[in-house]
Amino acid sequence: MRTIGFLGLGTMGSPMAVNLCRAGHTVYGWNRSPGRTGPLLAAGGRTAASVREAVRDADVVITMLPDAPQVEEIAYGPGGVLANARPGTLLIDMSTIAPRSSMKLAGVAAERRIRVLDAPVAGGETGAIEGILSIMVGGESDDFEEARPVFEALGRTVTYCGTHGLGQTVKAANQLVLAINMQACAEAVVFLEKSGVDLEAALDVLGGGLAGSNVLARKKPNLLRRDYTPSFTMGLHHKDMGIVTDTARSIGAAIPLGAVAAQLVASAVARGEAALDHCALLRGVELLSGYDRE
Amino acid sequence: MRTIGFLGLGTMGSPMAVNLCRAGHTVYGWNRSPGRTGPLLAAGGRTAASVREAVRDADVVITMLPDAPQVEEIAYGPGGVLANARPGTLLIDMSTIAPRSSMKLAGVAAERRIRVLDAPVAGGETGAIEGILSIMVGGESDDFEEARPVFEALGRTVTYCGTHGLGQTVKAANQLVLAINMQACAEAVVFLEKSGVDLEAALDVLGGGLAGSNVLARKKPNLLRRDYTPSFTMGLHHKDMGIVTDTARSIGAAIPLGAVAAQLVASAVARGEAALDHCALLRGVELLSGYDRE
Repeated sequence: MRTIGFLGLGTMGSPMAVNLCRAGHTVYGWNRSPGRTGPLLAAGGRTAASVREAVRDADVVITMLPDAPQVEEIAYGPGGVLANARPGTLLIDMSTIAPRSSMKLAGVAAERRIRVLDAPVAGGETGAIEGILSIMVGGESDDFEEARPVFEALGRTVTYCGTHGLGQTVKAANQLVLAINMQACAEAVVFLEKSGVDLEAALDVLGGGLAGSNVLARKKPNLLRRDYTPSFTMGLHHKDMGIVTDTARSIGAAIPLGAVAAQLVASAVARGEAALDHCALLRGVELLSGYDRE
Repeated sequence: MRTIGFLGLGTMGSPMAVNLCRAGHTVYGWNRSPGRTGPLLAAGGRTAASVREAVRDADVVITMLPDAPQVEEIAYGPGGVLANARPGTLLIDMSTIAPRSSMKLAGVAAERRIRVLDAPVAGGETGAIEGILSIMVGGESDDFEEARPVFEALGRTVTYCGTHGLGQTVKAANQLVLAINMQACAEAVVFLEKSGVDLEAALDVLGGGLAGSNVLARKKPNLLRRDYTPSFTMGLHHKDMGIVTDTARSIGAAIPLGAVAAQLVASAVARGEAALDHCALLRGVELLSGYDRE
């Protein structure tokens, strides 16, 4: 069992820290804003008043933060992880950030003899609560093996993707395909409804054939009811599409559909829909088609 | 059991006509070019020397042809179906053509008291041979019910989609989503490989999560091996994307990703890849990315 400093007790981080407690690890939780420690304390975890306090006795430090600026502030600052964790500590960044931000972190941390894994997740809040996340890991394979018991308390599918940053690369590709497949569903919905087809029957036909996808199966009820209650927000997908397009540019990968999908997600955010579920891409297609079902 | 005139014994039509024979129907097969009647004769079917001979005694006429011009020639010409079939005959067009071509056919045929269903299929040659096609049907619901025994000899999933043309509309939406999802896979492959990730492991991660799709599951071996042996050709998908974009324009449905996907399919055809499988969209992304894995 490990002593784990857990930094970032948000929607994802809080249930993840709880699952680590339940698996028997000693967890020191810290969050920038107060009022997030209740579930961790109830599960037998401890709270830390500062990053320093959370990491100074830890074998493993986990960060679960919104984006690269937050990760960099908490890693690099004078009160941060690299200045206060013991040499030999394993820092697992489970935030979704750009692959090259992960590569930079690994390089800077190595100078302090702190080892780093990038380990972004998929599966959302439900996956975090149920401990069934999909975890994509980049870094040294020995470090991955050492961290395996930690990952197994958090996820069902844990995949070693290669060197530093490649966990983030696989997560980015996942978000790329997901945005495109979601937009494909949105375009099909308006195409079918404006033609006068019974939408539910038609989506069943599509779902049963080669046009079927996990996002169509999962979001069909939402698309039928125009229910945009967020399970993954447009705002977060917008952040992720920024990572996708930036990474694609830096490695020289053409993403013609990905680039258009990123624009459509950005348009939804610009129109004030950041807090809706990302299946609200359907609203953009309706807007472009002069279509209002009501 | 019915007497069926079957027009078009191509890759799809020949095994479909065979399955109708095996189900006990009397089938008169006809094909424009010779040498296609062997399997039908072996299954106990009969051959007709002309469209007229195939349809004059039929209760049901089925057309399975490449595109609207062929359907229109065989339907409307002086030696064609409408001029030679008995009043009351049910004409089932199983070709994939534009919804408005199907609507026009139904209108013209009605003047001759010939009833029409549009009933395009999905499932490819394998689905045709095994009698497990997905069939999307538009027309009068009474006619659909009358045709049900015929459809059940050909397919496993038979869906009534609504009035004339709506079977074609659902097929078009299927091809729209399929092209987009396929291109999403192609973009992810180059993005992942240029980053240095192990492609097979990464595609397994994507396939197991919300980014998973039936086309990713089915085409993964082909994408990994760059195997473009056709199961559905780029050229046929190009024809279908013409139907999709034309229909979207005519009904006023915006398809921003569909339009780009149609261009990328068109580019593949322009580059001489019409005979490859449609997963050769990957070659276009490689070209745009200056990437050659070899």
